[in-house]
Amino acid sequence: MRNIFDLVLDKINEYSTPSCIGLDPDIRFIPRMIKDEAMSRYGDTRKGVAYAFLEFNKAIIDATEDIVGIYKPQMAFYEKYGPEGIQAFIDTVVYLKNKDKVVIEDAKRNDVGNTATAYADSHLGKVKLFNAVEPIYDVDLITVNGYLGEDGVKPFISASVENEKGIFVLAKTSNPSSVDFQNIKCVTDGNTVENYMLMMDLIKRWADGTQGQYGYMVAGAVVGTTFPADAKKIRDRYPDCFFLVPGYGAQGGTAEDIVSCFNKNSEGALVSSSRQINYAYLKDEKYTEENFADAARDAALSMKNAIASVL
Amino acid sequence: MRNIFDLVLDKINEYSTPSCIGLDPDIRFIPRMIKDEAMSRYGDTRKGVAYAFLEFNKAIIDATEDIVGIYKPQMAFYEKYGPEGIQAFIDTVVYLKNKDKVVIEDAKRNDVGNTATAYADSHLGKVKLFNAVEPIYDVDLITVNGYLGEDGVKPFISASVENEKGIFVLAKTSNPSSVDFQNIKCVTDGNTVENYMLMMDLIKRWADGTQGQYGYMVAGAVVGTTFPADAKKIRDRYPDCFFLVPGYGAQGGTAEDIVSCFNKNSEGALVSSSRQINYAYLKDEKYTEENFADAARDAALSMKNAIASVL
Repeated sequence: MRNIFDLVLDKINEYSTPSCIGLDPDIRFIPRMIKDEAMSRYGDTRKGVAYAFLEFNKAIIDATEDIVGIYKPQMAFYEKYGPEGIQAFIDTVVYLKNKDKVVIEDAKRNDVGNTATAYADSHLGKVKLFNAVEPIYDVDLITVNGYLGEDGVKPFISASVENEKGIFVLAKTSNPSSVDFQNIKCVTDGNTVENYMLMMDLIKRWADGTQGQYGYMVAGAVVGTTFPADAKKIRDRYPDCFFLVPGYGAQGGTAEDIVSCFNKNSEGALVSSSRQINYAYLKDEKYTEENFADAARDAALSMKNAIASVL
Repeated sequence: MRNIFDLVLDKINEYSTPSCIGLDPDIRFIPRMIKDEAMSRYGDTRKGVAYAFLEFNKAIIDATEDIVGIYKPQMAFYEKYGPEGIQAFIDTVVYLKNKDKVVIEDAKRNDVGNTATAYADSHLGKVKLFNAVEPIYDVDLITVNGYLGEDGVKPFISASVENEKGIFVLAKTSNPSSVDFQNIKCVTDGNTVENYMLMMDLIKRWADGTQGQYGYMVAGAVVGTTFPADAKKIRDRYPDCFFLVPGYGAQGGTAEDIVSCFNKNSEGALVSSSRQINYAYLKDEKYTEENFADAARDAALSMKNAIASVL
């Protein structure tokens, strides 16, 4: 049966790149002319910030839409501004879907039972009002934290299977202190493995049987580029688990490091970059605020080329 | 220095109970007259659901405000309905703060670096717009998932110290499958402990030094009632970590089970019940939809008395 990672792979093939662009709007770095327009319309308000976020995102998307087929807005930056920020998130998703893009929501949601179902329904499915039923966030995939165990992840897997959606469960993340917990050795079924591998074993147990036409389960894993040896161990053990690989660029991962995240057929991973692309205009004097979108486009092309050169 | 758990303990003493009431609005179980009023005002819309949630919450709060000083809205049930749901959450928090209640947001947020800071600022602090600075969610405490390590939790601890707020980090949760990951044995500093205890060791490492006048760190832990032996081990090892103990009632925890979550002075834990109180009118034929708030009040008193009888 077809599942979300068949669509993801089709997008990767269509654009000839496993690159994914993060959309992490930060009011400090949004160009002045967008902020001025937003303030002139809505004043120094949350609605103004939300307007600036959406205009900024649209410009980044318009400038890169021929380069990649997959985008990843980070929910924290929208949720930060309350209902208005959430609306900017939803408007961004609608804008992306109208351009036929795959949308990954980076939200790291987690809970159990009917609470997890509430998250899963609203982000990956539909929600019942009094009688009407409607989608709310309507993304294609969402990141999930699996610390709570099966009760916490199964509702997301069920929603994924029902709605042709998917999840990425945090396994080995790219931040330096991910070692604090994720790399501590544990004993499971008589074997000693790192906690991140225990999480991988659980993902496999929970999602096995949901493989699509290309062979990937609806539950993928978040695996950072910054620990390539760990990534390789996971890759070798679970070829049927798709990786979301954040941290390319800004968090220190290089193109060479990402090779370990791919299967031998150069498939099985999405590589994401956010700030390095969104705010590329701040990194090079040849750009100004006026051509921030050109800077983002150039940075996206650089990432695409760098990844292509090592795969 | 005074910290949030000094305020929590003052509230517990003021109301003579470590009980906490969850506010988990579920449209299926909200009484018909509230739904009819909401639909007549706003139709079958998200705004209508949000109105129903707020009216339901106000009635539960009004009926129980002389019984407890601490409430715990579960974010998932509000977020489920998008911006309108988020507004109902914020309106509920404002209603609670106007009654001088302590508010715990159960949201299990987690991320790293500037993303975690975005969550921490908006939920526990203030957020900068263009120039203006304003609070957004403005709760007193939030639940946090620590799987990402220090980078994921420190921003919440910093915001807590700055703003006299606090967090509860998931340690040993009340759901049956929490054993999948949390009870797997790991080796840390030469000792073999369960993963939940590794998480506790990390909480202590990250938050040590933030103890307030009553001796509790700004980072507490979520510890379920349903595994009393595990709770006791944590309690004995970390008397300076305050527990949030969900799962009383609906999830199967009994008053006897919660004793293991308290220090010898009968302090150090908050016991939370949500559905058992919110929807008490559905559990006993002596109640009707019309007196759902009386049913909630009776259930809150029962919980308070049951806990008092074992402490």
